[in-house]
Amino acid sequence: MVQKKSEVLMDLALRRSIFFPSAEIYGESFSGFWDYGFYGTAVKNRIIDSWRKDLVEKEGFIEIDGAQVLPEKVFVASGHLENFNDPLVQCSKCHGLHRADSLLGAEFELTEGTPTDRFDELIEKHKIQCPKCKGKLGKTKKFNLMMGLDIGATGKLKGYLRPETCQNIFLNFSRIQKTMRKNLPFGIAQTGKCFRNEIAPRNSILRIREISQMEIEVFFNPDKINEIPNFKEVENFKVRVRLNTKKKEEEISAKDLVSKKLVSGKLVAYYLARLQQFYQGLGIPTEKLRFREVSEEERPFYAKEGWDFEVETSLGWIELVANNYRTDYDLSGHAKTSSTNLKVKEDEKEFIPHVFEISAGVDRTLYVLLELALKEGTKKGEKRLFLSLTPKTAPFIAGVFPLVNKDGLDKKAKEIYENLLEHKLSVFFDAKGSIGKRYARVDEIGVAFSLTADFDTLKDKAVTIRERDSTEQKRVLIKSLPELLWKLSTEQTTFTQIK
Amino acid sequence: MVQKKSEVLMDLALRRSIFFPSAEIYGESFSGFWDYGFYGTAVKNRIIDSWRKDLVEKEGFIEIDGAQVLPEKVFVASGHLENFNDPLVQCSKCHGLHRADSLLGAEFELTEGTPTDRFDELIEKHKIQCPKCKGKLGKTKKFNLMMGLDIGATGKLKGYLRPETCQNIFLNFSRIQKTMRKNLPFGIAQTGKCFRNEIAPRNSILRIREISQMEIEVFFNPDKINEIPNFKEVENFKVRVRLNTKKKEEEISAKDLVSKKLVSGKLVAYYLARLQQFYQGLGIPTEKLRFREVSEEERPFYAKEGWDFEVETSLGWIELVANNYRTDYDLSGHAKTSSTNLKVKEDEKEFIPHVFEISAGVDRTLYVLLELALKEGTKKGEKRLFLSLTPKTAPFIAGVFPLVNKDGLDKKAKEIYENLLEHKLSVFFDAKGSIGKRYARVDEIGVAFSLTADFDTLKDKAVTIRERDSTEQKRVLIKSLPELLWKLSTEQTTFTQIK
Repeated sequence: MVQKKSEVLMDLALRRSIFFPSAEIYGESFSGFWDYGFYGTAVKNRIIDSWRKDLVEKEGFIEIDGAQVLPEKVFVASGHLENFNDPLVQCSKCHGLHRADSLLGAEFELTEGTPTDRFDELIEKHKIQCPKCKGKLGKTKKFNLMMGLDIGATGKLKGYLRPETCQNIFLNFSRIQKTMRKNLPFGIAQTGKCFRNEIAPRNSILRIREISQMEIEVFFNPDKINEIPNFKEVENFKVRVRLNTKKKEEEISAKDLVSKKLVSGKLVAYYLARLQQFYQGLGIPTEKLRFREVSEEERPFYAKEGWDFEVETSLGWIELVANNYRTDYDLSGHAKTSSTNLKVKEDEKEFIPHVFEISAGVDRTLYVLLELALKEGTKKGEKRLFLSLTPKTAPFIAGVFPLVNKDGLDKKAKEIYENLLEHKLSVFFDAKGSIGKRYARVDEIGVAFSLTADFDTLKDKAVTIRERDSTEQKRVLIKSLPELLWKLSTEQTTFTQIK
Repeated sequence: MVQKKSEVLMDLALRRSIFFPSAEIYGESFSGFWDYGFYGTAVKNRIIDSWRKDLVEKEGFIEIDGAQVLPEKVFVASGHLENFNDPLVQCSKCHGLHRADSLLGAEFELTEGTPTDRFDELIEKHKIQCPKCKGKLGKTKKFNLMMGLDIGATGKLKGYLRPETCQNIFLNFSRIQKTMRKNLPFGIAQTGKCFRNEIAPRNSILRIREISQMEIEVFFNPDKINEIPNFKEVENFKVRVRLNTKKKEEEISAKDLVSKKLVSGKLVAYYLARLQQFYQGLGIPTEKLRFREVSEEERPFYAKEGWDFEVETSLGWIELVANNYRTDYDLSGHAKTSSTNLKVKEDEKEFIPHVFEISAGVDRTLYVLLELALKEGTKKGEKRLFLSLTPKTAPFIAGVFPLVNKDGLDKKAKEIYENLLEHKLSVFFDAKGSIGKRYARVDEIGVAFSLTADFDTLKDKAVTIRERDSTEQKRVLIKSLPELLWKLSTEQTTFTQIK
């Protein structure tokens, strides 16, 4: 492709309303907020469904759904009010605002911990100017990324939109552990929105101010970080890592990650392996993914060990999941600030559990899946664009179409559609335009299969099933559809296996 | 029951972490925000799944997922900055804040439109004092319920958390209509959070500041409000209404609602019927529900016609869904303020579509379903509490238990559990405590069935299935479970029909 893949995807996203800027009829000044249309919402829901099944339910974890607005004290305890900052510089001429670290670039290895005067020093030394007007830049300030709110009518209660979904999990840990009678280790999961007042949102849905996350916090006894009953299931699984000390990716078994002391213990290796399996299952090829070991300087303020799960795209490596060993940082902070006992008793010993976090971005996962799935091909000499999404991540497993809108075909197709809905299959109905155009449209948005009711359907009680990638067609009986689509969507069968 | 049902439910909700105050370890000052635990989240997801299938997908509507933070201009256009207020009075002695309409009570028929000096007049005339300290009340002020935010680093961009989810739908209407090639009438749906800075949150999850909604906006040509192709399917369905002019509920067919001009047209009657069918399907008995006709004075500022869908509980009639005929109010406002053409062309005529809104509260739906399902019974002489939720709304269709945690039963039960998960059935696993205690626990949180792997299981390849309400047990083959649970959860079969 001559155009960069990210640009082709952006064109497609806008043209088919997969995702698009929020409140766009009011112009572009209010950036960093995006809406998902019909297909984007469907893919988002597919991603969350898969996460829930593979990483939450199978592990026996507890999913909760907490408030997005939390009182100020929570963020005193969590350290966000003090530490959740980006370095901000303002141009003295045009008053434009910039992130000092972005202006300086990656080669300086600037991190969350870099003091503001270090930025000023570097800006002066390297004669960095305002990128808009070449004006002189002012002093670097810390800019807190949280969004504050006044709650209640008094104006005295300060709240914040959560900057990460996990704080509810820490706040509820003790209640959940007691009322659900849970022994360590166990995980609490949550999916939902969080909010960060980014100085300069960019790259469509990659750097945004309102973010969808899927988070899991695993609570455990630090003395038992190597007691993971299911570790055997993954011990020989090759985790693709990019170590701090190495220049390239390598594949190391979970067992070896532990024995070579590259991770704090089996628990960490276990979840890295599970996460890689999950993303491979969503269709990301192994050679496009890695866990990048996060250096001490670069780690968030609460983390003792960090592995960023990244995927390679046309925009470079994109971080999809932050995996952090947060120790007892969060629970200790909340215990102290709220004067609550958050200790657990095990083997006659009382302690605050440690936490391993798997914090995944839904928006970024969606972006990466779409970009990697984007394909160009030709059909009957004409160019065609299609999204080669796996049946698991396709917005719909099938579109249901009447060949024409008469002679009972429309009614028959609708009947098939409604029956498939009853079987909780992700399908949609379209009766508009020529069948060729409908095929082209579903190809573009990644629907895995098309089902067409034609003039023979009323006689042979069958429809044509068409595969998106090969554009091949077969004839299948209507009554076999629920089971067939079920098996196709769970990848228990493939199109070529259909007889 | 001696205790009020709402109190029994609150006890249960806290004891089993169904729902509970957010950030509760930091005390109660920050009220109106609630978290959902494992079971609450599961029921919430069941409700949303049912809504998506029955009211969105079956109707062929478009679901979107938009940003919660929107720019100020949106709420200038929508009228919320001017009109979305509650009357606030402050005590001159203790400085306590109160809603003037709540202090005065229902008999005064105060509405959104009542001017503030009318409140002052009534407070003086009826000698209303501060309910906390009997102090003198100050003048009534309008208090805007929206929560404002500063966006970006300049501090000059003002945003608001949306007070209703529908604004994204109006903002995206034109884009969706064009890119999805939709003819009128069609609906856009959205589920998500919205935020209202209630002066006095109360009644647990009924009057809160962070709300989950499920909204549908149906766009139509006002000249064709009576052209609804599927109207026949509901024309004889009895809608239970409480007319403004009448003192009690009556059941009137959709057809008669139209012919007697009790609604603006067939479109309104159609969706009222569909909504009632949906809630009946969730298990709400007909005699407990009604559409209350909303009087002109009481209607929100944007509505021409309104029907509040209400359900009777121990706390009185609770509004679950606001059904409003919003005319072209919203699209016209946004067209004007954003200088965008939001007109549609049909039959050579250009016009701004009208909107009928079906705005449902998820939290309130959950509350009402749980309260109505709350039952007390006796089992072997002992009292038992159970939630008689329908299979559709139960947090899980089944719990999977090993009778004991040895002799391979735990492994077998886990295997059954994972296989059921693969079939996308809502199940959970519990191996803790005696089997009797596990049954009591699932009864309390409304799990529909229990599956127990016992010593015979390894021989006869079958498990015991136990029904929550009757506590009866039967033996079923493991291999028949996926289909059986599927049919039970979609109510295609019942426990008594199992052979």
